[in-house]
Amino acid sequence: MLIGFSEAEQFLRSCKDAVIITHRNPDGDCIGAGLGLHDILSEIGVRSRVVCHDSFGARYAFLTEGYTEEDFEPQTVIAVDIADTQLMGSYEEIYGKRVQLCIDHHESNKGYAERTLLNAKATAACEVIYQLAKHMGVEITTHCAMCLYTGIATDSGCFKYSCTTPEAHEIAAEMMRSYDIDFARINRAMFDIKSRGRIRLEAELSSMMEEYLDGRLVIVAVTQDMMKSMGVSIDELEGFAPITIQLETAEVGILLREREDGVFKCSFRSANDVNVSKICQTLGGGGHAKAAGCTASGDLDSIKTYLTDAVRKALEE
Amino acid sequence: MLIGFSEAEQFLRSCKDAVIITHRNPDGDCIGAGLGLHDILSEIGVRSRVVCHDSFGARYAFLTEGYTEEDFEPQTVIAVDIADTQLMGSYEEIYGKRVQLCIDHHESNKGYAERTLLNAKATAACEVIYQLAKHMGVEITTHCAMCLYTGIATDSGCFKYSCTTPEAHEIAAEMMRSYDIDFARINRAMFDIKSRGRIRLEAELSSMMEEYLDGRLVIVAVTQDMMKSMGVSIDELEGFAPITIQLETAEVGILLREREDGVFKCSFRSANDVNVSKICQTLGGGGHAKAAGCTASGDLDSIKTYLTDAVRKALEE
Repeated sequence: MLIGFSEAEQFLRSCKDAVIITHRNPDGDCIGAGLGLHDILSEIGVRSRVVCHDSFGARYAFLTEGYTEEDFEPQTVIAVDIADTQLMGSYEEIYGKRVQLCIDHHESNKGYAERTLLNAKATAACEVIYQLAKHMGVEITTHCAMCLYTGIATDSGCFKYSCTTPEAHEIAAEMMRSYDIDFARINRAMFDIKSRGRIRLEAELSSMMEEYLDGRLVIVAVTQDMMKSMGVSIDELEGFAPITIQLETAEVGILLREREDGVFKCSFRSANDVNVSKICQTLGGGGHAKAAGCTASGDLDSIKTYLTDAVRKALEE
Repeated sequence: MLIGFSEAEQFLRSCKDAVIITHRNPDGDCIGAGLGLHDILSEIGVRSRVVCHDSFGARYAFLTEGYTEEDFEPQTVIAVDIADTQLMGSYEEIYGKRVQLCIDHHESNKGYAERTLLNAKATAACEVIYQLAKHMGVEITTHCAMCLYTGIATDSGCFKYSCTTPEAHEIAAEMMRSYDIDFARINRAMFDIKSRGRIRLEAELSSMMEEYLDGRLVIVAVTQDMMKSMGVSIDELEGFAPITIQLETAEVGILLREREDGVFKCSFRSANDVNVSKICQTLGGGGHAKAAGCTASGDLDSIKTYLTDAVRKALEE
């Protein structure tokens, strides 16, 4: 059932001992939303614990510092930034069927919770949490402000992407004006720093860029042999697809990664207006307008020709 | 003479046929400020022309499209985003001594103009232009909104850096809410796309990173021989210093470039709190807290030791 802020407030003010579930492969938005909601619940005297299938990682130390996990048997189950219980990982089995409140911003939210506070226009779950805190009249602590800023900055690509709302900017302005948050340090942690491995792989993959269709299509193809010589697994090359659209002329970029069985995972990215989800649908895959995928098998040259033809057609439309 | 918004308005409303000077090596802020002020002057019936020592470049086509240069003999000289007449390039000789109004946000502004409208707390010159337009009650056109957004996004690193003000966020929110500006496309043009040459050089320089002091110092050293084999000049390696602080552990990064005479240009960057201007001052150079430079001569290994010692001292303080 979709609910509004008043019903969400009523629920939170009358609940006790809550577990707050965040999604697997956690990012700044679900971590910020989880810890931010934890702060808000503390303010109204409700004990809570933030859980995740994966650990939050050292990058988020500025948010997790000072958070201590309390030991209690949960009476209330809340999910934040989770569109589908599958994203709970190991917590799906324990809590998936008994989520009492979900706070989310994904249009694709499956409605698995008893109550869902959804703002599909919000940049981030943290934007919804902020609106809820304002509605409740709860004082936002400096730590909570850091959490909410982090989530909004993360999901908007530091206010860069088209999903950024005017509200996201306004909340950021208030977080900066009213609290002494070191937003530049947060942004460096979220956007600028890289591990040695990532720097090396980006450099290697960038040097492998191939241009097609007058540079409007960029393909980076990594075979099993290449992965062996680079010393990485296919999973370690997750998250590198965006480098395929860094070239100024690129409209579409594709990262190809060969699985052990000789089949290639094809990760598409769109730089501007081309809907790569549509292209991938014609190739048996799917996804979003700006990020989609499919698989392809055969020899690499034929695959490249096949993908180039599909992209050419889309560009001609 | 420092002036306020009322005096600036009075001056602009009574001037005619203005030339608006932007700084050499133009960036999104001076281009946005120049073209944005041109739009505002058009609104109040004042003819103007935006000039620059260098061309604005294809990256800014979304701002320059539709701007046509009118031919007239300037009666009024205005400078935007220019702290010092030296930054005017070839226009310094013609206009440097007779700038009637300067609109700027640099604390270091030399006060060379008859009237200076300065807001040293503003993120960008475009923020000052926005405040002026609001003060004047001039309607901001969609093109003007794009110009001002571009300048604010540019100088704040897309709202990432510590110089970002709450006002910058609030103006961005208004530009997004009131005008149909494609801010995501602007941001891609400003921040995400790279030329083939830049991608290649970033990859090459990243692969040359050397770590010192447990990774807290990163040095990338490029000798004349390396430049020859990379096929680039020392000038083409301008603007790459930030890659030295991308490593997660880096506090200080230094890009060394060998000049033909065997002397190395040392470009320092600080990731967080280390004041690299102070370090460079002890080495005979100078600059800003987060970006500074000096020169060093001798054999490369000795220079690295000498620079590492200086950074170690700063880190220990």
